[in-house]
This record gives sequence, structure tokens and C-alpha cells, in this order.
Amino acid sequence: MEMVLEDLYPSRVEQRPVWLDREDPVVYATETSNEFLTEQQVKDFDKNGFLIIPDVFSKEEVEAYNNEFERLASIPELVQKEEFIKEPESQIVRSIFAPHKLSELYQKLTNDPRIKGRVNFLLDDETYVHQARINAKPGFNGKEFYWHSDFETWHIEDGMPRMRAISCLVTMTENKSYNGSLMLMPGSHKKYVACVGQTPDDHYKESLRKQEYGVPDQESLETMYNRHGITVAECPPGSLILFDCNVMHGSNSNITPLARRNIFFVLNSVKNRLVEPFGGMKPRPDFIAERG
Amino acid sequence: MEMVLEDLYPSRVEQRPVWLDREDPVVYATETSNEFLTEQQVKDFDKNGFLIIPDVFSKEEVEAYNNEFERLASIPELVQKEEFIKEPESQIVRSIFAPHKLSELYQKLTNDPRIKGRVNFLLDDETYVHQARINAKPGFNGKEFYWHSDFETWHIEDGMPRMRAISCLVTMTENKSYNGSLMLMPGSHKKYVACVGQTPDDHYKESLRKQEYGVPDQESLETMYNRHGITVAECPPGSLILFDCNVMHGSNSNITPLARRNIFFVLNSVKNRLVEPFGGMKPRPDFIAERG
Repeated sequence: MEMVLEDLYPSRVEQRPVWLDREDPVVYATETSNEFLTEQQVKDFDKNGFLIIPDVFSKEEVEAYNNEFERLASIPELVQKEEFIKEPESQIVRSIFAPHKLSELYQKLTNDPRIKGRVNFLLDDETYVHQARINAKPGFNGKEFYWHSDFETWHIEDGMPRMRAISCLVTMTENKSYNGSLMLMPGSHKKYVACVGQTPDDHYKESLRKQEYGVPDQESLETMYNRHGITVAECPPGSLILFDCNVMHGSNSNITPLARRNIFFVLNSVKNRLVEPFGGMKPRPDFIAERG
Repeated sequence: MEMVLEDLYPSRVEQRPVWLDREDPVVYATETSNEFLTEQQVKDFDKNGFLIIPDVFSKEEVEAYNNEFERLASIPELVQKEEFIKEPESQIVRSIFAPHKLSELYQKLTNDPRIKGRVNFLLDDETYVHQARINAKPGFNGKEFYWHSDFETWHIEDGMPRMRAISCLVTMTENKSYNGSLMLMPGSHKKYVACVGQTPDDHYKESLRKQEYGVPDQESLETMYNRHGITVAECPPGSLILFDCNVMHGSNSNITPLARRNIFFVLNSVKNRLVEPFGGMKPRPDFIAERG
């Protein structure tokens, strides 16, 4: 007999936007702190939906991560692959998907105890890499990324059942207020904004460049902004940003000469593995959402 | 006998970018301070090329300026005029040019002693309005404005002979780091970056929406950034930002719900009135560059 999972977080079916309560914990931990996280940090993560932790990685480590990116982006056979996403206008490499499958160095990073020791504690479980990528927003013409909850997409398009995943961002360059850094709405992770409209198959090819579906309506964003405000995740290279899968976030364009490059990967609880996409579309490929 | 003015600041003629020294003072004042500006402020303006002064206009004044904008933008016969610039994609009013000719309130503002008392002191002369506009960068899809020196354009396209003009910006909303606020490179005003390439006639119609000509090269911007860094002009409503005509500036996009609206006008020394454009093109219309 097939198990049928109830869809707690429907989206893209409504004519008008709907806000739903979050039915899952933010912090699953059974203790209030561990060797990697203070009690205050755990409380902050629960309340705001993110943590910005500077000085986690050394200058040498960051340099090695950057060199590895340059190396990968300079191999023509690799760059033509689907995992390499280019800027809409300039064809400069904007993202590399699944870099941990292309590089031992990045593979090791996704298992780093400084990250896993925090995430597995917060989720009170073993985790695996749901998605990984390097986001390289170039200087001068780096494009914006509109507001979204990652969970909305992962639930509808990939079949992630519940909110038990944390995004990990390792900064490889300065993240300044002016170079298109991550913006988050603290506290927004406690509500789920169901988005309006249907989603065509295979739209992921475009959405990795520019979001068009699973986009919250302007009125909801305005209400959320008035309640929560915006935090710009300014921090130096070598920082670790952890954020909940349902926190509302986005980024502006970058006309400054300062490129912004981050390693991003999502650790998902092994109890929260993907099922059939809740939006009914065919699943996206493994390099975007690990089903293995 | 016709006077021929030497062109101290040629641009858009070179195959490669050239940096020229500024041949004009930044501060023309004969005293070190006056009733509106401290000695430190005068020094800062000279050094950085701008001043950000909060609390110059009251809450009531700012409200009146905003209401006046809404009033003008709601008159259909006005909105279709060339003075009303719309966003490339959404047709929302992005700028109103020459608002001081449409509105007594704005007319009065361009003569406000809190502004003129500062600018005329710094330029040691009487001034007139060279250009005025209201920049209304909407929330959600406000577009970026690429790096440029205003003087480069005013010199080449409008025939402004020398650097003896100051831009005045009155903030009508919050200017935050995240809502596409003005970014300036402090100290960049002491060099003149001659831009590469020719400029077609009538290109102003497009350039008011999106800059394509008179754009500095990336290498020059990178060098300037490394020397000077970037200041984001964060400040509350009712602030006055004064900036030199040759300081390098621009702004990123605005995906936040917070619209950003400023009144902007340029006061030019009466000894620095426009002549024939140095780029050889036909002059732009009066609502962009006052020749009267």
C-alpha cells in the first residue's frame, strides 16, 4: 500500500496569495547549545531564521576555494555543462551547480565539522547535500535575484516534504552592502507564503537565471518588510552564514567593481528526503536536487 | 570675433580611456566656513567630493514634497510629456524632469537658503538651476544606474565649460543601503575619466532610462574603487546631499518593497553657463539642460 503524504504547504494553485503557519520547528535540537553554537546563537537562529558567523574559515582556506573556482571555470569541457550557469547578457559564469561532485576540495567542505557540527545539531539529525552551488555574482553587471523562500521551490518542484533543511553559505569574497549581498527578512521563516499561479515543466533552466514562478506577491512582501525589516548579510571572506530553508531572501544587482562569490549548499535531514514534487511536475535533475 | 574656448576635458574621442587631472577647484570659497557649513564640512567636501547632511528639512516639508509628486504624477496630461520618464519595463514614473517649472513648491525649494547658502558659498558665486528632476526609484523593480561622472555628460552633451556646479539631493524617503541608494567613490572627483567611443544624436531619450554612452571603462572603475572605495549615502528623509559635478557615482537595483524618492537639482555658477556641446552634437532640450 502506497503511503500518501499530506501536503502541508500547497502553493501555485491559488488565485490569490495565502499565508500559512509553519507546521515544523525551526530548531530541532534537544540541547540549548553545543561546542559550535552558544545558547544565544541557537535562540537567534530560531527567532531570525539565520546566523552570520565571521572568522570560521582561514584566509588560506578561502584562497584555496577561490583558486578551485577559477580552475573549474577555466576547463572548457566543464563550462559547457548544464551545471554551469551564465549571466543572461554577458555569458560570464554566474553559478556552478554541484561543485562538490566536480571537486574533492568542495566535497570535503560539505562535510566540514565546523558546518555539520552546527547544522546537524540544529536539525537534530544526520544530513546530506540536497543542493550545492557556487554563486559568483560578477562585478559591474551582476544581476539581482528576486525575493523567494527556497523551501517553496524545493517543496513544489523537488518534493521536499517538511521544513528541516538549512542553507550554508561560505563567503569567498567581501560581502558588502553594495555588491549585491544576500538580504534576509528576519522572522519571515515562521510563515509560508503560498504563491499564485501554475508552473510549466522544465522552467528551471530559466529560473536559475531569473525567477518567474514561485515568486511571492508584492503585497505579502510589503507586509513582511513592515513586520520584519531587512538584514543585509554583510561579512568578510571566510564567514559562515546559516539560514533556514523558509526565510524570505533575495539580492540586488551589483554594479560595483567588487565581485561577490559564495559557496552555497543545503543540508537536509535524512528523515526529510525528497518524494514526488508537490506541484505535480516532473522532478528537476539531480544536480539541482539530489534524489539519490 | 568669436571666442574659442579650449576644451580642458575632452571625452568620447579616444580609442582607449584616459585620465586627466582636474583643472578646476572643488571649493571656490574664500572663507573657511559660513553660517551653514563648518570648517570640517568644507574640508570634507573638498576631499571627498560630497557631504551628507541629515535633518535639514522637517517631516512636514518632506510630506509636502511627496504629496506634490503624487499630485503631478496623477495628472494624465502631464505624465505623457517628455519630462516624465518611465521605468523600461513597467512604465511606472521613474523621474520627473524640471519639476520646478511645473510646481511652485519645487521652484521655491531650488531657491531655499539652506541649499543656496551652502552651494553659493562653496562655489563662491551666484548659481542657477542647470537641471532638476525627481528620481523615484520604485520598490520591487527599481533599476540600477551605472557609474558615471555627471560633468562628463554635461560637458560633452550640454556644453558645460568647467567644473563649477554642485548637485543637490533632498531625500523624500529613507535611503537605505538596500534600496538602491546613491553610491559615491569619495575622492574620485579629482580625476576626469575620458570615456571611449562616439555618441549618436538624440541618444538622451534612451540614456535617461539606461546609460550606454559616456560610461567609464571597467579598468578605470576598478582602479578608482581600489583607491577610494565606495560610500553608500544612507540617510533618513529630509537630508541634504551635496555632491561635486565630477564625483563618480551610481546606484544598484531595488528589489525591496521600500521605494526610494529624491529631489535632485544642479546649481551651476553663473560664470559657467553652457556653450556649444564639446562633443559636437546638437544641444539637449532645456528640460534636461537649461540654456535660457
